[in-house]
Amino acid sequence: MAPAWKRLIRFEATDGRVLRGEPMLPSEDYDVGKTTAETGLSAKVIHVVNGDIFDEQTRVTDEEVTVKQLLGPITQTEVPIIRAVGLNFIKHIKEGGRTLPPYPATFIKANTCIQDHNAPIIIPAMAQDEQADYEGELCFILSRDAKNVPESEAMSYIGGYLCGNDVSSRKIQRDPKIAGTVPQWNFSKGFDTYAPLGPMIVSPALIPDPAKLYLKTRVNGELRQSETMDDFCFKVPYLLSYMSQGTTIKKGTVVMTGTPSGVGYAMNPPRFLHPGDVVEVEILPHIGTLSNPVEYEQNGLIVPPQPLA
Amino acid sequence: MAPAWKRLIRFEATDGRVLRGEPMLPSEDYDVGKTTAETGLSAKVIHVVNGDIFDEQTRVTDEEVTVKQLLGPITQTEVPIIRAVGLNFIKHIKEGGRTLPPYPATFIKANTCIQDHNAPIIIPAMAQDEQADYEGELCFILSRDAKNVPESEAMSYIGGYLCGNDVSSRKIQRDPKIAGTVPQWNFSKGFDTYAPLGPMIVSPALIPDPAKLYLKTRVNGELRQSETMDDFCFKVPYLLSYMSQGTTIKKGTVVMTGTPSGVGYAMNPPRFLHPGDVVEVEILPHIGTLSNPVEYEQNGLIVPPQPLA
Repeated sequence: MAPAWKRLIRFEATDGRVLRGEPMLPSEDYDVGKTTAETGLSAKVIHVVNGDIFDEQTRVTDEEVTVKQLLGPITQTEVPIIRAVGLNFIKHIKEGGRTLPPYPATFIKANTCIQDHNAPIIIPAMAQDEQADYEGELCFILSRDAKNVPESEAMSYIGGYLCGNDVSSRKIQRDPKIAGTVPQWNFSKGFDTYAPLGPMIVSPALIPDPAKLYLKTRVNGELRQSETMDDFCFKVPYLLSYMSQGTTIKKGTVVMTGTPSGVGYAMNPPRFLHPGDVVEVEILPHIGTLSNPVEYEQNGLIVPPQPLA
Repeated sequence: MAPAWKRLIRFEATDGRVLRGEPMLPSEDYDVGKTTAETGLSAKVIHVVNGDIFDEQTRVTDEEVTVKQLLGPITQTEVPIIRAVGLNFIKHIKEGGRTLPPYPATFIKANTCIQDHNAPIIIPAMAQDEQADYEGELCFILSRDAKNVPESEAMSYIGGYLCGNDVSSRKIQRDPKIAGTVPQWNFSKGFDTYAPLGPMIVSPALIPDPAKLYLKTRVNGELRQSETMDDFCFKVPYLLSYMSQGTTIKKGTVVMTGTPSGVGYAMNPPRFLHPGDVVEVEILPHIGTLSNPVEYEQNGLIVPPQPLA
């Protein structure tokens, strides 16, 4: 079911309040994510009922405010969990010489990974050794609980689309000296701030067919990823239907749908993220640009390996 | 910090209320999990403040009630997430010809997996083809948020211990025809009811050294797993310290610490779970026996594989 709003942002208003709002765009192709404090974007305040942006009584009011600073559209308390998909772009799978998988490869990121638009990706002490990487991804959020949902009904559970960055630590994920015999997708992708989401949530009313969307990821303005969603191995309704087998996918769950080719560790030579870098994930039309600077954690913890017996 | 209670159960009282309580044991070695409705176990009501069993004001009252039916000690709304560990028993790792891993292999189960003590493990339609398996495990629960916690301080974050069953679907987890090239630990272990927890939570005040605990798993009374926790490759404080690197482990998080040898798929021939089976995970001293019958989901969903391009 489509929500009462078309686009939803969360922001600090010029009067200091943190609000949800429907941005008042100068034009349909205006990119909210590239808005800065100086632009003075206006928004109509969204009255969120029961703390739930998808509640039937949540509505767009007539109160107009000026945006001082954009935050992420959704917070850790509203997202029970993030469910993510591994390899999902056909060209990327085939160029690696692999056959297409029969089912999606999935993993989980805790909601503690969620970070606001424009807020820093903080690389923890243990992952600052040339391994931090971006993965630009189309995400969707559930407007109601889903379980055993047939593919034909899956789209009615989607409350909106947004950009996400599935930030990853490649050594912890893949290096057998660290990961052991089983790739460690959850821990390596699960640090605090490793799931920036934003810049807004866009209603399915504006995205009749997510396969027509186009994703671009840039690091410091340099194009790294560029792909259309019609190259998906598993399309959006299949993904949700598959995940819902015997499994309650809770309302508010964010699903990250997989990243195309062009990530840093696959470059020759590999190019990882460093403090001062800025990662942008742009999904057009409509969804806009998620932007996050990169920092290193200060005074973090590095646990030594278990002494081998 | 140890909670105000020594043992915590959740139950339906004979007056119909669902309560938390401190069981009044006839003897120190009395096994609460083997209590049936007929025994009329008594408990002192625990007054839970702010919905939080670890709140400093949560206390054991003088009100005595009779237990009609035991439930699980903790519910989905109180546990943000379950963090679990793969291979963690030295003998089990070595008997498989493997070397000890330098770091723990971890994965995540959503809180939607949690099931009460005595309530059924429901095998979903897609996993009823000879693959459902048990994994008896010692679990601990966090009494406060943990991040970057040194091993020397880790024990002060543990609010209690309990039994858990990391129910698993072996084909979805391991069969390359289904799982593809990356073992699918999250989805295969993530179905609703696939994390029974109980029968009670036992304070660290009663468990000065978890390495001295002993775990036994039985199916229909037949012993399948039997091991002491001093065979852990990664001990409890190391596990929590490791997981907390750059990662907020939220209060209420349940950590499953890994299973010893003796699971069904490793038997010759393999023996999987079927409707009518009863799985018991017993951890002594003090923690008791978690018991769950097995059922098949009725009218579930089976999503066909992606047609290969």
